[in-house]
Amino acid sequence: MSQKRVLTGVKPTGTVHLGNYVGAIKPAVKLINDARDCFLFVADYHALNAVRDAKELKESSYSVAATYLAFGIDLDKTVFYRQSDIPQIFELATILAAVTPKGLMNRSHAYKAMIDKNTAAGKTGSELDDGVNMGLYTYPILMAADILIAQSDIVPVGKDQIQHIEMTRDMAGSFNHLFGETFKLPEFQVQESAGAIPGLDGQKMSKSYNNIIPLFETNKRRQKLIMKIVTDSKLPEEPKDPESSTIYQLYTQFGTEAEIAEMKKAFEQGGMGYGDAKKLLAEAVNRELEGPTELYNEWLENRAKLDELLDAGAETARAVAKDTIRDVRKAIGVKA
Amino acid sequence: MSQKRVLTGVKPTGTVHLGNYVGAIKPAVKLINDARDCFLFVADYHALNAVRDAKELKESSYSVAATYLAFGIDLDKTVFYRQSDIPQIFELATILAAVTPKGLMNRSHAYKAMIDKNTAAGKTGSELDDGVNMGLYTYPILMAADILIAQSDIVPVGKDQIQHIEMTRDMAGSFNHLFGETFKLPEFQVQESAGAIPGLDGQKMSKSYNNIIPLFETNKRRQKLIMKIVTDSKLPEEPKDPESSTIYQLYTQFGTEAEIAEMKKAFEQGGMGYGDAKKLLAEAVNRELEGPTELYNEWLENRAKLDELLDAGAETARAVAKDTIRDVRKAIGVKA
Repeated sequence: MSQKRVLTGVKPTGTVHLGNYVGAIKPAVKLINDARDCFLFVADYHALNAVRDAKELKESSYSVAATYLAFGIDLDKTVFYRQSDIPQIFELATILAAVTPKGLMNRSHAYKAMIDKNTAAGKTGSELDDGVNMGLYTYPILMAADILIAQSDIVPVGKDQIQHIEMTRDMAGSFNHLFGETFKLPEFQVQESAGAIPGLDGQKMSKSYNNIIPLFETNKRRQKLIMKIVTDSKLPEEPKDPESSTIYQLYTQFGTEAEIAEMKKAFEQGGMGYGDAKKLLAEAVNRELEGPTELYNEWLENRAKLDELLDAGAETARAVAKDTIRDVRKAIGVKA
Repeated sequence: MSQKRVLTGVKPTGTVHLGNYVGAIKPAVKLINDARDCFLFVADYHALNAVRDAKELKESSYSVAATYLAFGIDLDKTVFYRQSDIPQIFELATILAAVTPKGLMNRSHAYKAMIDKNTAAGKTGSELDDGVNMGLYTYPILMAADILIAQSDIVPVGKDQIQHIEMTRDMAGSFNHLFGETFKLPEFQVQESAGAIPGLDGQKMSKSYNNIIPLFETNKRRQKLIMKIVTDSKLPEEPKDPESSTIYQLYTQFGTEAEIAEMKKAFEQGGMGYGDAKKLLAEAVNRELEGPTELYNEWLENRAKLDELLDAGAETARAVAKDTIRDVRKAIGVKA
């Protein structure tokens, strides 16, 4: 019985925070470990559209790899590799471009968002493409190549990314139509978003609001930040609305069911001060993140081992990629 | 002393004729053999934008390779390979896309010609991209990757292709600016076009006019076609204007200097009939093409040897490409 292959790409970014963890990393790790056959890759060439600094790209690539390892992805079922180590992806992207109408790219949400932004800024005509680079514009082709090269069955996506899988299916379908059945069409699987969590000031946690709690930190530093969470001036004995409390909202992500219920009760009935609640939150957060933080730091201090692991993943992924590209080359008439 | 490296790509096409030979193949072979260090490649992935048939792409790739070998390119100085055998080209194209503004592609002559054609057909808005595929649209990026991966110094081009080299320099310059000096900027070298030659009916020789003399043919068949060249009804003894004679025009490409002068004199003074002139032309054409035709057929009958030769060329080219991509990866922060 063949397993369905799940593919997930993670883009290297800078410092990750609790919001990224709750909204993206935690559900992705669960999904990866629930799958029986998973291809997970560091999408370093997708990151290149925004990162123009070698050190930054290098560090964030190691960092994102260490992050997923720190949260315990199961390497027995997961092929973990860097996109940049699979040259067949870029060859396939070149081939797919030849069968992709430009009109399809014009409909990409990410591109249209740039056009809308330029339109809103009063730009017209050729200025509408201001700030759009070809990496961004052709992103859906590279993503299709990522997916198709790995012979993926299922790609988990947020709702805003369904289009990418539809485009991938379009390209694969066009290719099959022109050159004979070569690709199986991948399915998307919509991941319910865990939603945003509040930051220190109660707004959505985001680097741009400067209100984040970094994911990998010492317990002490995490606690110190948590103690800075902005609250109203209610006294300990006053009843408080848990739903409008940043502390309680964060606690729902890190406390056990019993702990969450207890804080809820104490808030509603009065009798718990914000200082004590913050301490409980810090304990719960640290309990969940202390181990992964240690592992994360260990991986980052042992880059040779990290490279070795990703190199081994790349070797497995390349074997699949070579199979795919051989069939593709045969189909188009290039020596396989 | 380092040699300047000359790079030339040849796109696989269908049947070639005397017009292609005089206008493109012959000057290219001369140029290749005049260079001390030449990279010559079969641009099979560029052809994919138009060819949607595996057999056709395969046959025309062998055919164009056999053509250049038949005309005696010097393999001691020439690295001869298939584009599709150098995966680093496609990786570099992916990287260059990330530093290429979309506006640059919008200015490409080939793309603008498609827009003009659609405009002339009364199309507007999103229909302006009708018939444009992403392979055509991103062609200048792939071409830049072809050139830069081989560390080329000089790229011979027709006047209409100067833009491609300028775009390549733009991309290489942007990359160097963002990530530090990595690429040397190639120079173009304008090839004076030998111009069009007339076909059987006196119009420009072209497959679309159905007036061609195929390049690789038996002497007998070539002679038979040449005997069909359309002439006026002047008698042998009447003086004739050589400049307006298809026969004489073709003869200037294939006769020796003395032979050409002799026919010119005979035409101007009267005394040479068209039938005799055609026989002389056929003799001169066959003299030049008989040997290459034999070689061409030999190469095509020995595809294993052709593959072996191109595989060996690819190995040499890949060694250079690996050097280039290693430097590029180091510059952007991807594990080299």
